[in-house]
Amino acid sequence: MKLVTYDRDGAARLGAVAADQIVDLAMLADAAGETLPCAMIDLIALGEDGLARARRLMAAHDGNWPAGTARPVEGTRLLAPIPRLPKGVIGVGLNYAEHVEESSRTMDTARERPSHPVIFFKPPTAVVGPEAPILHNAAQTRQMDWESELGVVIGHTCRNVGTDAAMGMVFGYTCVNDISARDLRHGGQWCFAKGQDSFAPMGPCIVTADEIPDPHTLRIGLRVNGVTKQDGNTGQMIFRVPDLIAHLSSGITLEPGDVIATGSPSGVGISFTPPQFLQPGDVVEVEVEGIGVLRNPVVAV
Amino acid sequence: MKLVTYDRDGAARLGAVAADQIVDLAMLADAAGETLPCAMIDLIALGEDGLARARRLMAAHDGNWPAGTARPVEGTRLLAPIPRLPKGVIGVGLNYAEHVEESSRTMDTARERPSHPVIFFKPPTAVVGPEAPILHNAAQTRQMDWESELGVVIGHTCRNVGTDAAMGMVFGYTCVNDISARDLRHGGQWCFAKGQDSFAPMGPCIVTADEIPDPHTLRIGLRVNGVTKQDGNTGQMIFRVPDLIAHLSSGITLEPGDVIATGSPSGVGISFTPPQFLQPGDVVEVEVEGIGVLRNPVVAV
Repeated sequence: MKLVTYDRDGAARLGAVAADQIVDLAMLADAAGETLPCAMIDLIALGEDGLARARRLMAAHDGNWPAGTARPVEGTRLLAPIPRLPKGVIGVGLNYAEHVEESSRTMDTARERPSHPVIFFKPPTAVVGPEAPILHNAAQTRQMDWESELGVVIGHTCRNVGTDAAMGMVFGYTCVNDISARDLRHGGQWCFAKGQDSFAPMGPCIVTADEIPDPHTLRIGLRVNGVTKQDGNTGQMIFRVPDLIAHLSSGITLEPGDVIATGSPSGVGISFTPPQFLQPGDVVEVEVEGIGVLRNPVVAV
Repeated sequence: MKLVTYDRDGAARLGAVAADQIVDLAMLADAAGETLPCAMIDLIALGEDGLARARRLMAAHDGNWPAGTARPVEGTRLLAPIPRLPKGVIGVGLNYAEHVEESSRTMDTARERPSHPVIFFKPPTAVVGPEAPILHNAAQTRQMDWESELGVVIGHTCRNVGTDAAMGMVFGYTCVNDISARDLRHGGQWCFAKGQDSFAPMGPCIVTADEIPDPHTLRIGLRVNGVTKQDGNTGQMIFRVPDLIAHLSSGITLEPGDVIATGSPSGVGISFTPPQFLQPGDVVEVEVEGIGVLRNPVVAV
């Protein structure tokens, strides 16, 4: 299933995409005398039961949506699939070999592939949805950069998960744009440079794990104003999804709705000669195969 | 006021400390035909109105607590003052000059004072309360270390606050122990090494800002098994509380209940010759003048 959080008269609501329609899952359930939550995070917390109910109700109607439950995707404003993440975005740095190389050439990072995943956090306040502005503060940064990433949405509370069991913890996948102000890294730490408001665009949807049996076969790329800057494949990850879940959960309890941004392929702005950075007026698109396009304008503040 | 979150028959409840008693604020208000929230975060969100009501009700009874509303501090389990932080702990590294020096001597950090605050995050899952175990995983770390810190609790949603207005954003103060597994820094990033479950003990209480007019005059220290390891003063901070709030809010929206851990004075374990690290069975106490003692045992997992 392709799940979205959409704006319905000012309220954030959970929807499922079917053809060109968004079906409100709580309303669809209600029309059938059943219940489903209004919020994505609550559906995730229900686990397989909630998803099974949603799938059954969607299949039972299959296009004949009860009055008022569906509206066209076109013209509907999508929000971040999980508007308020339980612990923000769990970011993974330097997880594609060519990006490790370009980073060491143009930034202060090591030349060698990391021996363990390199982890950072973006707070929940950094998350925005599709089409939401990425806030460019020219008084603060001259080096706003992009990074297209596959986001892994965790479905279960878990700690100390082995790699064998790790994929069972995945609810689904989304796109993340890991925006950085490269010149705001202080003391070598990335959290302030990557954690500012609007620096974690996410969406446009969550595709449930059953539709992406192997998340390491997906083309992933990024365009600025229609020009391709990144064109990689998630198969190039150094630490794969089960490795990341095992590593993180060895010390940090993962929770339903946590999102792991799995790192960026090569082609970030600072790696170009001369470097390219985002400017107000630019439009950035992250695209991950099987998920969709996450498009955001850059806007001056 | 000295506010706590305490365990009342399995529920986390907001209390105020008066002499040797914890008074349940929601129950006290209820007995007077008024209302106050059951959760610290909700009281913080009420702003000055909520605090004024709490103060008035506490003063009106002053020891003559209505039946069932008070219980002795002694024997009552305290939880982290804010059990679930909105965005985890906002950590500040290298914010005391002598700690900058000892860190550069014993770790990979720079010798110079940082030009800007060095920011990292600990996720909400890292937070535990007084007396809760700090989890020591010997298979993962041989270098578990302590850092006593003053925690600043934010009271208002704010962005782009100047230093002049910054102190008006403060709800109160608490103690934080910024636990690190020094050997789990990967790629130079601190979040995994500092962000594990139980690595952010917090408490024992929040002292409201009116009782600490200047947070830069407080003795701050730490003991391991009763032996003093850190003994500093918050006046030694490089970036002071208003500087930190101004810097953070220049890019990150701060929210009621956010906690900024303002950095550690010198005397961390890795700086000793030979280095000293926490072991199962140890007991660590952070003490900040005017707030109290945050005591946690280290326990093997």
